[in-house]
Amino acid sequence: YDNVIQPGDNPDITKERKTASFNLWKMQCFVHEGEEIVKRRKEILDFVQNCREFDDPIPAEFMSREEIIDRGARKAKAMTDNADAIDGSDFFGEGLYFQSLTIGRELHCMSLHYGMFLPTIQGQSDDDQMDEWMAPTIGRAFIGTFAQTEMGHGSNLTKLETTCTYDPKTEEFVLHTPTLTATKWWPGGLGKTSNVAVVMAQLYTNGQNMIQGPHPFFVPLRDPDTHMPYRGVTLGDIGPKFGINSNDNGFLIFDNYRIPRRNMFMRFSKVLPDGTYVKPPHAKLGFGTMVFVRSIMIKDQATQLGAAAVIGIRYSAVRRQGEINEGAGEVQVMDYRTQQFRLLPQLARAFAFLFAAYEIKTLYMDVIDQIGAGNMDLLAELHAVSSGLKSVVSWETAQGIEQLRLACGGHGYSRASAFPDIYTYAVGGCTYEGENIVMLLQVARQDAGKARVRSWRQCTDEDIIHDFEAVARKQIFATYDRLKFFETTMTKKEAWNKCSIDLCKTARMHVKLYLVKVFLKRVAACEDAACKKVMHTLAELYAFDMISSASGAFLKGGFMSEQQADLVQSDLYEMLEALRPEAVALADSWDMSDLELRSVLGRRDGNVYPALLEWAKKSQLNRTEVLPTFEKYLGPMMKEGRSHL
Amino acid sequence: YDNVIQPGDNPDITKERKTASFNLWKMQCFVHEGEEIVKRRKEILDFVQNCREFDDPIPAEFMSREEIIDRGARKAKAMTDNADAIDGSDFFGEGLYFQSLTIGRELHCMSLHYGMFLPTIQGQSDDDQMDEWMAPTIGRAFIGTFAQTEMGHGSNLTKLETTCTYDPKTEEFVLHTPTLTATKWWPGGLGKTSNVAVVMAQLYTNGQNMIQGPHPFFVPLRDPDTHMPYRGVTLGDIGPKFGINSNDNGFLIFDNYRIPRRNMFMRFSKVLPDGTYVKPPHAKLGFGTMVFVRSIMIKDQATQLGAAAVIGIRYSAVRRQGEINEGAGEVQVMDYRTQQFRLLPQLARAFAFLFAAYEIKTLYMDVIDQIGAGNMDLLAELHAVSSGLKSVVSWETAQGIEQLRLACGGHGYSRASAFPDIYTYAVGGCTYEGENIVMLLQVARQDAGKARVRSWRQCTDEDIIHDFEAVARKQIFATYDRLKFFETTMTKKEAWNKCSIDLCKTARMHVKLYLVKVFLKRVAACEDAACKKVMHTLAELYAFDMISSASGAFLKGGFMSEQQADLVQSDLYEMLEALRPEAVALADSWDMSDLELRSVLGRRDGNVYPALLEWAKKSQLNRTEVLPTFEKYLGPMMKEGRSHL
Repeated sequence: YDNVIQPGDNPDITKERKTASFNLWKMQCFVHEGEEIVKRRKEILDFVQNCREFDDPIPAEFMSREEIIDRGARKAKAMTDNADAIDGSDFFGEGLYFQSLTIGRELHCMSLHYGMFLPTIQGQSDDDQMDEWMAPTIGRAFIGTFAQTEMGHGSNLTKLETTCTYDPKTEEFVLHTPTLTATKWWPGGLGKTSNVAVVMAQLYTNGQNMIQGPHPFFVPLRDPDTHMPYRGVTLGDIGPKFGINSNDNGFLIFDNYRIPRRNMFMRFSKVLPDGTYVKPPHAKLGFGTMVFVRSIMIKDQATQLGAAAVIGIRYSAVRRQGEINEGAGEVQVMDYRTQQFRLLPQLARAFAFLFAAYEIKTLYMDVIDQIGAGNMDLLAELHAVSSGLKSVVSWETAQGIEQLRLACGGHGYSRASAFPDIYTYAVGGCTYEGENIVMLLQVARQDAGKARVRSWRQCTDEDIIHDFEAVARKQIFATYDRLKFFETTMTKKEAWNKCSIDLCKTARMHVKLYLVKVFLKRVAACEDAACKKVMHTLAELYAFDMISSASGAFLKGGFMSEQQADLVQSDLYEMLEALRPEAVALADSWDMSDLELRSVLGRRDGNVYPALLEWAKKSQLNRTEVLPTFEKYLGPMMKEGRSHL
Repeated sequence: YDNVIQPGDNPDITKERKTASFNLWKMQCFVHEGEEIVKRRKEILDFVQNCREFDDPIPAEFMSREEIIDRGARKAKAMTDNADAIDGSDFFGEGLYFQSLTIGRELHCMSLHYGMFLPTIQGQSDDDQMDEWMAPTIGRAFIGTFAQTEMGHGSNLTKLETTCTYDPKTEEFVLHTPTLTATKWWPGGLGKTSNVAVVMAQLYTNGQNMIQGPHPFFVPLRDPDTHMPYRGVTLGDIGPKFGINSNDNGFLIFDNYRIPRRNMFMRFSKVLPDGTYVKPPHAKLGFGTMVFVRSIMIKDQATQLGAAAVIGIRYSAVRRQGEINEGAGEVQVMDYRTQQFRLLPQLARAFAFLFAAYEIKTLYMDVIDQIGAGNMDLLAELHAVSSGLKSVVSWETAQGIEQLRLACGGHGYSRASAFPDIYTYAVGGCTYEGENIVMLLQVARQDAGKARVRSWRQCTDEDIIHDFEAVARKQIFATYDRLKFFETTMTKKEAWNKCSIDLCKTARMHVKLYLVKVFLKRVAACEDAACKKVMHTLAELYAFDMISSASGAFLKGGFMSEQQADLVQSDLYEMLEALRPEAVALADSWDMSDLELRSVLGRRDGNVYPALLEWAKKSQLNRTEVLPTFEKYLGPMMKEGRSHL
């Protein structure tokens, strides 16, 4: 605990750290999947802290859009210059961490170069293309992006409008934006940074649209020397967003822009020089890149929610407000039951998501191995699990961050807290729901039985899982019946649409079941008894909180009795009480340095108030005592006002 | 309908407008409480649109912090220069509207001058003080703010630390900031704009802290001519926030700063020249200003959620994505059941909040009259209702805005949509909950009975209200029993803390009951049959949606059967279907001009896509084709990369 408790720390936070029942180091190793990783985190942190290239003259919060764009480009270069500091093959672990330390919660201008462009080169090129494009991609000879979404089409990729038409006379493809809504819109780094892109477009050859859905092409956009767009290419930034403004998300319009035939990615399908189209062996292979991004996203979302929980918990340990017993002095706000209820279930959620991310990573690795061996069986499962999880995790992460922010009162609204930046960054991950539910309906119809969870002290992990499974199945059963009923009077698709609210509910419950299962499984594998005990309570808090907020589903049909529902509620309060003394140490177990957190409220040392004043003094507006607005508008106005008195 | 349907509009949105079953003008009059008000809105809109002073050279979204501060001051002056355009006594109606048209969703630098400083002068001054301060306040001879919250204390006002000590020798008060946490923190316009403030401080005279909680003082802060802070006063901006960055929320530190004795507000209590303290007749009078602000806030929140619903609905009418029946062409996204479920309950909620705001305004006016007549009876009720409502309304508004934003997919994340600005503005209204619950426990214990709501087509307004009341009472009863049980083994305050999660739930249910009642009551008073029918369905959607999401509470103890719960669910879907053709017209009934909405996605004409491209072209980053980052970092990096190939 040497690094975490230091002289000069806020005594309230030190007191909290001393009440924990477990060894912090052991818990950190459990949370981060092993000693080796926690040590590497320390090494990477030391490296970044000692490297002047990563310093910021002023914190990013105080910068204008132009300044954070400049910062983002500078940091992206510095980070990739120093790529040797980490294991570049481990983006899920070291890459994501390195980026958060060097750049923070901003997708920099090369995010898509590494996150989507490079994987597409790797996954979609044939051997010759790999030889040509891989070295310059790795060697930063150009900067790429991934241009898929259009102004008029996001989720429905089969209807993308950009066309790519083969011209056998010149052996070239002609890229074109036939309508305004076909304008490529949103790709990160497209506006100002990238000079090449993977462009997804409808392929036409011999006068026919040859493939269901879009096909990827390698497209040079800007002159390497002048950075000016090529003729036939119109590019720009799409303007300010909720967050992630250090990225120049862009738009792109083609006017009959020509590229060589071999710029079509040809690993899976081809167009021969005469225009003959050669089919891919498996229709869905093109979507591998999206799945990769989704898997990483779940880890990232878990980390953002974790950071918000760390900030909320630490601040609630040092913030004193109001008295519980009159005259006894103001208490730490964490002593309030309502505050515990705001903080601890969110902390539990963050762990649940982190552990789910580990599971998905493992599944992803298995899929990659199997695809390499020509086996596609697991791809559908990975697709279903990762998109279901992404939908639930991103929405609950966003909600959780806001609840934690609000739990910090007014100061949570200041960017000093980091909450606004965490929220706007994380909520970018939220998207549509409701797809990929079909798999869930395949679960067999089973009798729901009776609830086993009776009270916290008596129920086992199996009881909890049994009850979640039963309720999830009951929902699937009911939804399936409703769907079949509708199908007797309308088309399948119409019936699907009519049932879609129930389908989403069902899918969400299924994902929650998955999350509870994974959490309990992970905890069961924990080797240290003290860590295991606390983590187990946290997993139970997670499950009971979900049962409590879905009590309607559990009470339905008398599956759970009212008495059981009341017990769940009072058990929840007991769990909060049991976890109260562990809260700050559990926050510490995320091993988030002040550099990673970037939050005045979440500081390790708990000395929030002096830091808040120091931070505020850096405000753009404090550079001069009197702003130009006084001379321009307000001074003359008041002078006139005084003259009338 | 002449103004709403115009040639050149997107045909999808015109089609939607034509399917409505009611007369738009009549609905607008119902929504805005009468023809006169809708006409005035039109007049005010015309005035603002014809007044060049209110133009923006570029939209505020593209401005840096310094630029929006400049814009805010310019607009605040222009707005108050043109105050004659509106009825200045009607801030709830015309004032709020005028401000939204001229400035938008930003609290400008004079917000607190009018919103809190002026009401304090009016409410807390004695007659001589009124003569001295009222004219310069109205005449803008100075700009005031309201300095209450401190760095270390927000909600617990009795523990504010700033001291104001009377010195009978010089007949002055000495203001002092005894600790870092006593620094005044957050007041709007305090950092750079205001040159006077109402300062809340602990009053000391004859060596004693004379009054429970803080007392208001009139405090000059800056020199009127130079705008430099007076000696003993340190001021500054507290830095960037989630939103509302056009306001210079500030900090303030006093170093033994002296003001005359008569700068104490003396309407209710006094300090005589010799230091004798004269008590106020009623201890809580000082909090009147906060209650005033709260009442306005509920209207404001309702309007923000309404704006978000208008944007979401209009965009969902013009956005086409995906096919319900294959080959039948892409459908308007509003045809999706899930999309209807995202949009329409939020629209219903916005109306519920708006109608509650009207009720609160009426109650507030009654309270003002009664206080004038020396009667304080209604003050406590207003305080309880307004704070309970504020808590529920602000949280549900914030959640609702985000759900509507997410319903607009990726484009909702762009500031072109206005959602980010609506959200960060509205969510500033969220604060702590859980206070003021004690009043709710006074509701008598009553038998809950059996649910009456059976199915949509059969149930009456009374049935709905009966069920909500029964469930609310049941919760109060259970919470009260639990509280009493805890009180047998601990102090009352400790027991309160232990029950506080239940107390909050109970209070929230009570507020929801209030909202349902008010909604149904308003609709019952609607005179036009066609409007009444649609609005009634919307009120029922609101009630049924709440029953559905609180199904646990309704199912408990068999109050509602599982079959009834299922009926509620399928009734909800029927209501969505019935409201689908009315949706765009209901959005139009808010009478929000493009100027008020400030949203590319929510445009009246539905021509979203060309407007989106036009908007993006104004991006700061598009001023030059090649950014400096190319020359500084990325160009040399890529050149080096190419040299290694």
